[in-house]
Amino acid sequence: MFLRIDKLQIELPKPAKQDPNAAAALLELLGGKYGEMSTLGNYLFQSFNFRSKSKLKPFYGLVANITAEELGHVELVSNGVALLNNGPGEPETTGEDISDAPFEAMKDIRLAASFFSNGGGATPVNSNGASWNVDHITTTGNVIFDLLHNFHLECGARLHKLRVYETVSDKTSREVCGYLLVRGGVHAHAYALALKQLTGVEIEKMLPTPNIQLSKIPESQKYLDEGSHRRLYRFSPNDYQEIRGIWGNGERALPGDPPGELEVVDGPPEGGRIPELEGIPSAFTPDYAPEEMFEIATKLWKKSR
Amino acid sequence: MFLRIDKLQIELPKPAKQDPNAAAALLELLGGKYGEMSTLGNYLFQSFNFRSKSKLKPFYGLVANITAEELGHVELVSNGVALLNNGPGEPETTGEDISDAPFEAMKDIRLAASFFSNGGGATPVNSNGASWNVDHITTTGNVIFDLLHNFHLECGARLHKLRVYETVSDKTSREVCGYLLVRGGVHAHAYALALKQLTGVEIEKMLPTPNIQLSKIPESQKYLDEGSHRRLYRFSPNDYQEIRGIWGNGERALPGDPPGELEVVDGPPEGGRIPELEGIPSAFTPDYAPEEMFEIATKLWKKSR
Amino acid sequence: MFLRIDKLQIELPKPAKQDPNAAAALLELLGGKYGEMSTLGNYLFQSFNFRSKSKLKPFYGLVANITAEELGHVELVSNGVALLNNGPGEPETTGEDISDAPFEAMKDIRLAASFFSNGGGATPVNSNGASWNVDHITTTGNVIFDLLHNFHLECGARLHKLRVYETVSDKTSREVCGYLLVRGGVHAHAYALALKQLTGVEIEKMLPTPNIQLSKIPESQKYLDEGSHRRLYRFSPNDYQEIRGIWGNGERALPGDPPGELEVVDGPPEGGRIPELEGIPSAFTPDYAPEEMFEIATKLWKKSR
Amino acid sequence: MFLRIDKLQIELPKPAKQDPNAAAALLELLGGKYGEMSTLGNYLFQSFNFRSKSKLKPFYGLVANITAEELGHVELVSNGVALLNNGPGEPETTGEDISDAPFEAMKDIRLAASFFSNGGGATPVNSNGASWNVDHITTTGNVIFDLLHNFHLECGARLHKLRVYETVSDKTSREVCGYLLVRGGVHAHAYALALKQLTGVEIEKMLPTPNIQLSKIPESQKYLDEGSHRRLYRFSPNDYQEIRGIWGNGERALPGDPPGELEVVDGPPEGGRIPELEGIPSAFTPDYAPEEMFEIATKLWKKSR
Amino acid sequence: MFLRIDKLQIELPKPAKQDPNAAAALLELLGGKYGEMSTLGNYLFQSFNFRSKSKLKPFYGLVANITAEELGHVELVSNGVALLNNGPGEPETTGEDISDAPFEAMKDIRLAASFFSNGGGATPVNSNGASWNVDHITTTGNVIFDLLHNFHLECGARLHKLRVYETVSDKTSREVCGYLLVRGGVHAHAYALALKQLTGVEIEKMLPTPNIQLSKIPESQKYLDEGSHRRLYRFSPNDYQEIRGIWGNGERALPGDPPGELEVVDGPPEGGRIPELEGIPSAFTPDYAPEEMFEIATKLWKKSR
Amino acid sequence: MFLRIDKLQIELPKPAKQDPNAAAALLELLGGKYGEMSTLGNYLFQSFNFRSKSKLKPFYGLVANITAEELGHVELVSNGVALLNNGPGEPETTGEDISDAPFEAMKDIRLAASFFSNGGGATPVNSNGASWNVDHITTTGNVIFDLLHNFHLECGARLHKLRVYETVSDKTSREVCGYLLVRGGVHAHAYALALKQLTGVEIEKMLPTPNIQLSKIPESQKYLDEGSHRRLYRFSPNDYQEIRGIWGNGERALPGDPPGELEVVDGPPEGGRIPELEGIPSAFTPDYAPEEMFEIATKLWKKSR
Repeated sequence: MFLRIDKLQIELPKPAKQDPNAAAALLELLGGKYGEMSTLGNYLFQSFNFRSKSKLKPFYGLVANITAEELGHVELVSNGVALLNNGPGEPETTGEDISDAPFEAMKDIRLAASFFSNGGGATPVNSNGASWNVDHITTTGNVIFDLLHNFHLECGARLHKLRVYETVSDKTSREVCGYLLVRGGVHAHAYALALKQLTGVEIEKMLPTPNIQLSKIPESQKYLDEGSHRRLYRFSPNDYQEIRGIWGNGERALPGDPPGELEVVDGPPEGGRIPELEGIPSAFTPDYAPEEMFEIATKLWKKSR
Repeated sequence: MFLRIDKLQIELPKPAKQDPNAAAALLELLGGKYGEMSTLGNYLFQSFNFRSKSKLKPFYGLVANITAEELGHVELVSNGVALLNNGPGEPETTGEDISDAPFEAMKDIRLAASFFSNGGGATPVNSNGASWNVDHITTTGNVIFDLLHNFHLECGARLHKLRVYETVSDKTSREVCGYLLVRGGVHAHAYALALKQLTGVEIEKMLPTPNIQLSKIPESQKYLDEGSHRRLYRFSPNDYQEIRGIWGNGERALPGDPPGELEVVDGPPEGGRIPELEGIPSAFTPDYAPEEMFEIATKLWKKSR
Repeated sequence: MFLRIDKLQIELPKPAKQDPNAAAALLELLGGKYGEMSTLGNYLFQSFNFRSKSKLKPFYGLVANITAEELGHVELVSNGVALLNNGPGEPETTGEDISDAPFEAMKDIRLAASFFSNGGGATPVNSNGASWNVDHITTTGNVIFDLLHNFHLECGARLHKLRVYETVSDKTSREVCGYLLVRGGVHAHAYALALKQLTGVEIEKMLPTPNIQLSKIPESQKYLDEGSHRRLYRFSPNDYQEIRGIWGNGERALPGDPPGELEVVDGPPEGGRIPELEGIPSAFTPDYAPEEMFEIATKLWKKSR
Repeated sequence: MFLRIDKLQIELPKPAKQDPNAAAALLELLGGKYGEMSTLGNYLFQSFNFRSKSKLKPFYGLVANITAEELGHVELVSNGVALLNNGPGEPETTGEDISDAPFEAMKDIRLAASFFSNGGGATPVNSNGASWNVDHITTTGNVIFDLLHNFHLECGARLHKLRVYETVSDKTSREVCGYLLVRGGVHAHAYALALKQLTGVEIEKMLPTPNIQLSKIPESQKYLDEGSHRRLYRFSPNDYQEIRGIWGNGERALPGDPPGELEVVDGPPEGGRIPELEGIPSAFTPDYAPEEMFEIATKLWKKSR
Repeated sequence: MFLRIDKLQIELPKPAKQDPNAAAALLELLGGKYGEMSTLGNYLFQSFNFRSKSKLKPFYGLVANITAEELGHVELVSNGVALLNNGPGEPETTGEDISDAPFEAMKDIRLAASFFSNGGGATPVNSNGASWNVDHITTTGNVIFDLLHNFHLECGARLHKLRVYETVSDKTSREVCGYLLVRGGVHAHAYALALKQLTGVEIEKMLPTPNIQLSKIPESQKYLDEGSHRRLYRFSPNDYQEIRGIWGNGERALPGDPPGELEVVDGPPEGGRIPELEGIPSAFTPDYAPEEMFEIATKLWKKSR
Repeated sequence: MFLRIDKLQIELPKPAKQDPNAAAALLELLGGKYGEMSTLGNYLFQSFNFRSKSKLKPFYGLVANITAEELGHVELVSNGVALLNNGPGEPETTGEDISDAPFEAMKDIRLAASFFSNGGGATPVNSNGASWNVDHITTTGNVIFDLLHNFHLECGARLHKLRVYETVSDKTSREVCGYLLVRGGVHAHAYALALKQLTGVEIEKMLPTPNIQLSKIPESQKYLDEGSHRRLYRFSPNDYQEIRGIWGNGERALPGDPPGELEVVDGPPEGGRIPELEGIPSAFTPDYAPEEMFEIATKLWKKSR
């Protein structure tokens, strides 16, 4: 079972201007082969399908627990996409005249269906608009192989994050990339340690792949400073304690990162607010003339307290 | 953000025998157009993309909160699939002789790739093996339309659950269907009430669609008896309280179901154990000769405490 | 069986200039999830698969008859796409020098394959170039559910038409949108009335969704003026008379539209000419040096009379 | 524009028993690469996108007119699929007890989703359940090439029909194959004649491909006897007269078929009744307890007269 | 550039009987995510896209050269598929009576389209009939990551080969599996050694994954005996000599395999005959009445000498 | 089996500037329905699945041998794509500062995923980014039909090459088009001659389709001058000699091309160098700080000699 908390994993700055092509770039990190839907989908189904769970608790727990963090990553990138498509958000009071092609600019953005169909919202597609699908999932039930796959997946995800980062200059998507680079690094490290335990191969020495330190990414710096790269959050009220057998256990941060011991943190990070996406009545979000809708909602809300 | 609890929403009985075609039938409820991946995917992305969240809290909260329950439904169906592919689970001590075609029967099952590639695990495909994908998601940002879509989606999901139920005779998949029929009914009812608040149309009078009472489904009976059809769980430590404005508020159970008031329940249901899937070393799950792996895991687990 | 008439449902103005990105926008209304291929595909297969046709004639007739109109909608949007890709059409006498990159501009249009592969013609893809496919079809055989699906589909189609309309400023695609908004409104209304007959729920009160009157769309005005929103054409020489039981029957136009009774019109609308798409020999349409081809055709045509 | 007539192109016998795998075989002729959706889709979009229509009337007319016949072929195969999935159709009076796995057999059919999702209805997929899509369409705007493609497509369609025919023994699908083999032969012949007019190449001498006479197919015999192989129906009230320039014109039946001149027939064939598909209330078609629905329909029908 | 030799990499025994479901099982090794099309596609495009080829010759050469072997693997599996669909092959003299459902059995095989559309031939799909596609390709241009991906890919391919092997009992597909397990092992080992050179991580110690020695596979034994597991063939007249820097260099066979030094072999293995697939005229392969075709071919062949 | 030679079929000029949209245009010729992956895939699988090979040697040999040339075409187009994405290639000494959006321009290219995921490398997709897949393959085992399909495929490929040519002005992609137009012409001609032998139909008289002489393409001229249009290369050390029965045999060049006899050439063309693609460390190709990698490679290379 899963619980939901109405917060993002970090506070996400609003963009200074609307930038649908930057939003489309972020989609690579959402629905691409090496995006967050893939890390989520792989770990989610691997955790469901995990064989001999009770005998392999630390390994099962690792996959199952990281799954929950990935849900928050999908949420984070999706919010980034929606913010960049929406822009800074000047609230319209009500729907404008729609007969003068108010959204003509949307005709020329790279992925125009994201406006027509989603009103700027995120969907699980890659930066070319191709759908995420089952071909992006590996779940064989062989523990060594699945962990090896996951290690490779996190390295690939890192490469894609780095390249997306290099194409965007707005603060919203850079914050997304900066944070996810640190957290993805933790996951790559964790899978490497799991593999080392099971096979004796010091595969964590392959990190970082690609061969660049996070210290070169200003947006990652604050997360390194606070030690995020050494923390594996236990995203659960009470479960998955056994992951301490893998993450921790005397293991330390990777050589190029700020030094220190690895630690399991109970519970999720403090997180930041879910961004308010201003509706755009002339785009029929939440609807053309939303005032009555807002009144109804207010009335219901009051009743609920 | 999301938290994970290492339990299923209900206790799932183990099947008396392996039945890969029943597992394939359940896949319709996992990765089909009207399956749980679709309800999850629709509500997940709708909640990310929701416009004017602060002004529409009860509606936003409804979609966001049900999302968390759907995650557990995906988990429940997936566990059902894996159990049916695995069978009752006689533990092998170690890998057997593999040169005598020990899995010849798998060659003739309907979706043979589920053995070759997933070792019997679940993946997000439908009962014909076609992948779940973005075409199964509607997220327009228009509140009325998205709610109408969701209402239709839950009715369609009910129809598919009923038909899958009619093809299976094992207790595992019937329990899955029996439970999900009740919970899907709650969601259909909830979206109907939301639409009624916003439009005045008493669309809940269209329920149940299809036109059959759950009292005809023995496996649903105990959930009706305990009032599950009147409960909307708040799958969150502290958030989404505003849904009480929609679910509750004097509204009552649908005419054909056991009578009573609708109520919001704080927190998830008690739930049942995650089933232990016995590994099958000769199928390389968790691996061919897993004893050493088990020892390592035990050692790490002890260290973690 | 189907017959074909060599006319469009309306006279379509030629665009003042070539605009491939506007053509790509229109594709959302052709091959998108809520486009005309979807309305066509859903009703076509629902009509084939309709159970108990003789006992449910008015409902069967409604779906079967609207199917024929949707074929004309697919034709209308496709012609719009081809016109916008072709432009106003200055006839070339024969193929030009092709070695100087005469179509360099096509390299940068959003969906370049529409030039390379289709010479500017329409195909059933959405505005991102993704193919229409079976995932866009719902045909369950359950009458209530299929009608509910269709009602939701028409509301979604309306939303997409509105958004495409807001991005285009040429008269061709605006005429397409203006007309289809009126006709799609009729279909939504018709399915609502069918559902009301079967369930008693006054679901037509949810219309219009999105919440904007067609009077705000200048291009829809003439169709409203002539009462198109009150007419259901019987697209058949002799069949589907039973639809009068649903459309008509004292029911009247929706509140925001010009008032009046609903009426079934025997036969199709008068329609407009199929636009002549000038060939572009340098793009090999109909071919590089088409003169001989034209002569042959003329000779054959004469012989045919 | 298109009109619809509530008849099939031929009278289709009901099968003696339910045979979902035969229905799945027929799907190859519906949604396969060389199926009727493909012939329809190719000619439909080619006719929309046809360049220089007024100068190439006989060729435009040929493609446009055959499109209308293909709609009826899609309808014919779809009805065959639905009939074979439904079986001879003993009417249930109302829904049965659904708790005893009444449809257990459906779990093992080749394409189980056709039951779960479509209640036995047809959808545009091939015999493996893969969706028809835009990759099955060629529409380049080059007249010679598109006609050559169509000639190849009809030959491929013939090969697939022959192979499906060889796997089925029920009278329903054999009738479908027997008829479509004759009509597909007409289309191949017609495209060959068009190509001969334009290029001088006597490509009709390649027919029949594959190299077998229709006289070997008993189910084709009656259609040969009535001369169907020499007739091109003009599926239009008034248009496409120019096709006489290609079909006719002194051309005669192919050597291996009953001899005679080719002729254009005004209007569609007489056709046969649309088969009544009995609903199966326990499968929720048209619904579980359909009596009230039937009453409502009867009342509306009476009102409509 | 590529050259072709009209031989298979090994002599492939004919099956004792037709077995379409075994053929479908082999398809997992052809078009599945971890099949030969994937190893081919990944290395082919990685070799095209390789950056700084001249500075990284041993690594470029490794990927480029293995590509050529993978082409032969695709060929080998495809021949296995076609043989199993065809059976031992009693030559028909000419087409039989086709009106008595001579291929009725094909209606019930798992992937019936392989008969209808391919006459039993192989196509790049997986064991469920889903198409191979670009999602199965990783080519990032980052050398470490692409090699890591390839290492994981070969381990995954091994797991899938093992499972397919466990479901088949005919000698044809077992020979395919037995040989490919040895050769895939070489590729996994080679990529491991390349990674070790670049990163220092002894990742080859993770082999074999899954954790089973090839000595348990009788069909692999003769290839181990002849030392195939120690040989990297240089599939090129003159190029890719630099691979000796990686394969060889004092490295030795993996611990569980017959011991010895690794060696690069110049040129391809001796190979075996391309199997003769007897045509089945009644299935229209090569055609219904092929005698004349054979005569023409004989005449042309004589002329060519 | 296949061998690989480390050369392209021609020397390919480097582009004067980076042009990702031209690269995307070339993708139509790589992964489009009528691109080189399709010619390759069709002939590859047809050659595997060819029935009665020994009795139909000239025809089998034709398909099998052309397959090998198509591999080189896939290689040629892929190299063109990578060159255009890379540009003229100023070598970076090591990775630059990546925090200032050095690749911002990539955000706006038509197919941004080609940068994010492939670092500018080629993958088998069309010019809209849609994946090549099994729907692009026809392999029925019927010789006449498969050859007819191939003839149509080559004509379609020619049309697509012509249109791509008309959109590009850089010398790299024009050279690719100019060469492939000549070679594709040879293949169309060869399949036509094969069909003529088998059916007597002089289908080669339909060439060229589209109706334009290659003399209008300056980049094709040198290949015509050297007689490339009259040569069928035997891409094999010793096999496929029987193709002389079809290509040659007194047949001559097509009327519009430089005259002369057709000839089979033993062995591949001389070919040109594989272009060096400079790595871009800041894009992590081959990696961020590649110096050590280069040193390792040099050391290994030396050892290999």
